[in-house]
Amino acid sequence: MFRPKIKVLDCTIRDGGLMNNHQFDDDIVRATYRAVSEAGIDYMEIGYKNSKSLFSPKEFGKWKFCDDEEIKKITDGIESNTKMSVMVDVGRVEMEDVKPKKDSPVDMIRVASYVKEIDKAIRLVNHFADKGYETTINIMAISRALDNEVTEAFEQLEKESKADVIYIVDSFGALYQETTEFLIKKAKSIMKSKEIGFHAHNNQQLAFGNTIEAIIHDANYLDATIYGLGRGAGNCPLELLVGFLKNPKFDIRPIFSLIYDHYIPLGKKIEWGYSIPYAITGMLDEHPKPAIEFHKAGRKENYREFYESLKGKDLD
Amino acid sequence: MFRPKIKVLDCTIRDGGLMNNHQFDDDIVRATYRAVSEAGIDYMEIGYKNSKSLFSPKEFGKWKFCDDEEIKKITDGIESNTKMSVMVDVGRVEMEDVKPKKDSPVDMIRVASYVKEIDKAIRLVNHFADKGYETTINIMAISRALDNEVTEAFEQLEKESKADVIYIVDSFGALYQETTEFLIKKAKSIMKSKEIGFHAHNNQQLAFGNTIEAIIHDANYLDATIYGLGRGAGNCPLELLVGFLKNPKFDIRPIFSLIYDHYIPLGKKIEWGYSIPYAITGMLDEHPKPAIEFHKAGRKENYREFYESLKGKDLD
Repeated sequence: MFRPKIKVLDCTIRDGGLMNNHQFDDDIVRATYRAVSEAGIDYMEIGYKNSKSLFSPKEFGKWKFCDDEEIKKITDGIESNTKMSVMVDVGRVEMEDVKPKKDSPVDMIRVASYVKEIDKAIRLVNHFADKGYETTINIMAISRALDNEVTEAFEQLEKESKADVIYIVDSFGALYQETTEFLIKKAKSIMKSKEIGFHAHNNQQLAFGNTIEAIIHDANYLDATIYGLGRGAGNCPLELLVGFLKNPKFDIRPIFSLIYDHYIPLGKKIEWGYSIPYAITGMLDEHPKPAIEFHKAGRKENYREFYESLKGKDLD
Repeated sequence: MFRPKIKVLDCTIRDGGLMNNHQFDDDIVRATYRAVSEAGIDYMEIGYKNSKSLFSPKEFGKWKFCDDEEIKKITDGIESNTKMSVMVDVGRVEMEDVKPKKDSPVDMIRVASYVKEIDKAIRLVNHFADKGYETTINIMAISRALDNEVTEAFEQLEKESKADVIYIVDSFGALYQETTEFLIKKAKSIMKSKEIGFHAHNNQQLAFGNTIEAIIHDANYLDATIYGLGRGAGNCPLELLVGFLKNPKFDIRPIFSLIYDHYIPLGKKIEWGYSIPYAITGMLDEHPKPAIEFHKAGRKENYREFYESLKGKDLD
């Protein structure tokens, strides 16, 4: 038996873009849009709507900015019921870059925010809701927020925000099933008028397991990416999530073709997925940055030294 | 707070041996024994006690047979509180190859059995218990057994077997958290005099998550392997399990050194871990054999065709 309210959001190009400065060939982006459309995925998130005055289009690919015209080029001619999503970061978006919904190919805008920026996030999300978009607020790095701050943020979001969905984001891949259960239950109990979403990272190979845990406790919006592509250790693999969900509208086969044709080759150019440095930052509930640097620099020190250097830092 | 009854068993060399016909250099086996000893791991399983009349020592390495003298060479001179385990398969062991415990370096014998062979497994395990060993029965491929057969097997094991521990083995990597919970609870409710163990495979990246689930429902014997080495998609990574468990006797650092020095290099020679063919056999609750063949043969067909070929088979 399936739960009709469950919605799956593919954020491969958006989260994966953090690994290649959002420089994807149109070919793979179109193939991804076509495959997730055929597979019956509810949403596809294509990138960030960041200000070009803050980030240079010379340094970053087009999915750092997500101009409407670029999105239209990707979707043009492909039959689809998949809605289009873009993400904005608090403090990095120009309001006037976002047209009213009726003039845009974008259906949903997701505002990424730390707990401490929640007032700014609410102002942003209400602005986009007023422009006609479906909206969410994605609370990042929630594993590092103090419980009283999380409670207060949830209460504010319930009262003050027009967001349809509030996401719990395990940015550091530090959550276990018990902590996922705790946070989802807390979110559900405070934000009764909202849907709850979950976005996992795979540092400890728990992205899929924690997503199932979130489903069990009634999260209905689920993020996943093709072959787990995403920052560092990556995300919950879309193919596994679709294999698990029972809604007959999903068809897993186009995803297998897509992985074979596009994401196995991509894996030879950019590196993501489980590794010991990512596991270590996850275990220690640390930002993956030192692990990303470890890989980029081809650093040679033993994993034990890497662990001890972070562990020492932890005790400061 | 930690649960003192929890015991961790490292089965890297035993389950990993399925990937290289048990042909490990003494160097890596000794390094593994040393590291798991330093890390405070409770048991290390080094291989199978198979009959040399059934398998040729020319084709298979020494850890297919686990002669006492070979085990002593590995452990010699290494300070350790880690107990030594070997596995036997129903129908593949000569009783007389196993000396009484007092004359052997082995502490524990684990009998691997399908549900349908449970009578043979009980006869074997009682024989080894009478020889003085700690014993377990590991019920393989439990995801494919009918519920009434599982119930009957559990009842028999409780009444007739001298095994200390009964393991649930997810051979196909097909279990989810709910199915893990169901099986562990069922095992606990019927086999009240036994400890329950759990052995996971990582086809759907759920080996660690399901192991946590088993812990939550009071399984106390947990299998894991260094860097997840094991047949096909591999097993629950020991480093993640030790990172999760709270017993202060565990020290994760020797495991990180071991991975860096020995298992990253080994990964360049033999291939294990998550891949789409393994995910597909896991999802379909099929033996990983076709996926292993897919990889070995360097087969070129699209994953979609592989999925459809198994799916079709499923409908026969």
